[in-house]
Amino acid sequence: MPSRRVIGIDAGGTKLLGGVVDEDLAVRHRVHRLWRGSEREELLRVMVEAVEEARAAAPDAVAVGFGIPALVDHAAGASMFSTHLPLDGVPFRALMEERLNLPVFVDNDATLALLAEATAGMARDRRHALMLTLGTGIGGGILADGRLQRGARGAGAELGHIVVDIDGPPCQGNCPGRGCLEVMASGSAIGREGAEAARRAPDSALGEQLRAGREITGAIVTELAHDGDPAAREVLELIGRRLGAGVTGLVNAFDPEIVVVGGGAVAGGELLLAPARAVVAERALPPNQETPIVAAHFGEEAGMIGAAVLALEDGSA
Amino acid sequence: MPSRRVIGIDAGGTKLLGGVVDEDLAVRHRVHRLWRGSEREELLRVMVEAVEEARAAAPDAVAVGFGIPALVDHAAGASMFSTHLPLDGVPFRALMEERLNLPVFVDNDATLALLAEATAGMARDRRHALMLTLGTGIGGGILADGRLQRGARGAGAELGHIVVDIDGPPCQGNCPGRGCLEVMASGSAIGREGAEAARRAPDSALGEQLRAGREITGAIVTELAHDGDPAAREVLELIGRRLGAGVTGLVNAFDPEIVVVGGGAVAGGELLLAPARAVVAERALPPNQETPIVAAHFGEEAGMIGAAVLALEDGSA
Repeated sequence: MPSRRVIGIDAGGTKLLGGVVDEDLAVRHRVHRLWRGSEREELLRVMVEAVEEARAAAPDAVAVGFGIPALVDHAAGASMFSTHLPLDGVPFRALMEERLNLPVFVDNDATLALLAEATAGMARDRRHALMLTLGTGIGGGILADGRLQRGARGAGAELGHIVVDIDGPPCQGNCPGRGCLEVMASGSAIGREGAEAARRAPDSALGEQLRAGREITGAIVTELAHDGDPAAREVLELIGRRLGAGVTGLVNAFDPEIVVVGGGAVAGGELLLAPARAVVAERALPPNQETPIVAAHFGEEAGMIGAAVLALEDGSA
Repeated sequence: MPSRRVIGIDAGGTKLLGGVVDEDLAVRHRVHRLWRGSEREELLRVMVEAVEEARAAAPDAVAVGFGIPALVDHAAGASMFSTHLPLDGVPFRALMEERLNLPVFVDNDATLALLAEATAGMARDRRHALMLTLGTGIGGGILADGRLQRGARGAGAELGHIVVDIDGPPCQGNCPGRGCLEVMASGSAIGREGAEAARRAPDSALGEQLRAGREITGAIVTELAHDGDPAAREVLELIGRRLGAGVTGLVNAFDPEIVVVGGGAVAGGELLLAPARAVVAERALPPNQETPIVAAHFGEEAGMIGAAVLALEDGSA
């Protein structure tokens, strides 16, 4: 029997990453899209177009899995609420199946990233694991007793919206919170802190970028940090320590065997993860202090591959 | 067949509450003990003595359940670590069975409070619920998919040790954290904030207590708040709002059907819970804003009754 193929789509807050994925989880063809501030109809149109591009390369794909940055009623295939995309109250699966004429499966993007890592990545053979995806926002996934946890209605596992700074700044997107982990330690937060650091240190490599009129994004900060710019490194250290404070609370609440960090911002690697680990080692309850905190095996592609795993699993059920 | 009876013991950070409990969860005979700063041997001696007192009133009791404020390896019956009692690395069940010559069962105190509430209290018939017990510290319990969650090793569900104030004060007891929910919103925190409020408002009822040389405890603040003292009410409002910030993160992480609040400090009732609800309604992600936050049906006795439920369930297995 030839390997079944599916299309996995990770629709993030500012970009889409898709691919044709085999049963052995090899990615055969990638598609990319960017969006920012798109209305719902435009957003759905871009998603359909991305799927069609992938499908052109793999006409035998049997299903599509979508990860979306939203609270998802997984059984109904509906998006209840999204902090970053205009997807509140959208019957996503029904709508996409009609447009694509293919079986469609949908779940929260970070939960799917954890599904990928639990299937063949850093959380393989684990029964208790947490996932944090650091991108535009921060997504979360929970594996407990060997099962993905989504809460009573699918509105759970929003680990980016635990409160780590009680009187902190307003959160991002449509989140009504303050001082959520997301506003403190996401890729967007790296960009914001990077811009401030650039103003404070105009002679740093980061400062030069700002003077040259470039927007200081999390990606630029991360690149300059890897190049050795002290100002950029301090930003990743700061964000890593904040991440560590959030993870401290999470390991105390969940006692996971491992915490997996994915999303675009994990490009910071040890510059981000080492300070996070140091805070957890210092501040978590003793049995939880040593919890491994590791970069996702599938890196930024964990969500896309997890969406494919969902389509492979649910599509064969 | 006559009803089986067991002894339930809730061994808190500063006091023990025990009782003889029937299968219908009626409490027939209560025992109380206070301790503060006791060494391990003294603590265990007081526990044994409390069990023997209950047993004298119910010689037919078939087992003893203990709730302890510790990270408990439930299967092994061992205490791994406790922030409030000298119970690190104690083979609790084996030790107590030897001294009591009765079957002994042990688990985390707040997890047992949730077991009581899920069996016959506010979380009855729920599949997803959280418990917070506000006393000397803050204990936590998690029910997800109908099962009590203890994490990979039993070191989880420590919901009092989520970080809500990243640069906050050092936590209580042996917790190496800073700004944990426990140091911000426990019964002890009510006492500390009450003492400060008493100094700021010497003419308040709270201030009078301080001038009269009485120690300002959470219980006194709560009593004066119920009597209408504005200074005491402000303290409960402050603590309730902090509790709400913690619960905001927890409902976003767990999407429970209900959050049950127990422990001695729940004596504050609506003066504490109404501000907590207001913060959650304002700051949680929209589907989670309306999560009911209620006082434990079994009040301060939830842990003791849960310990009895454990003994009844595990004792008949």
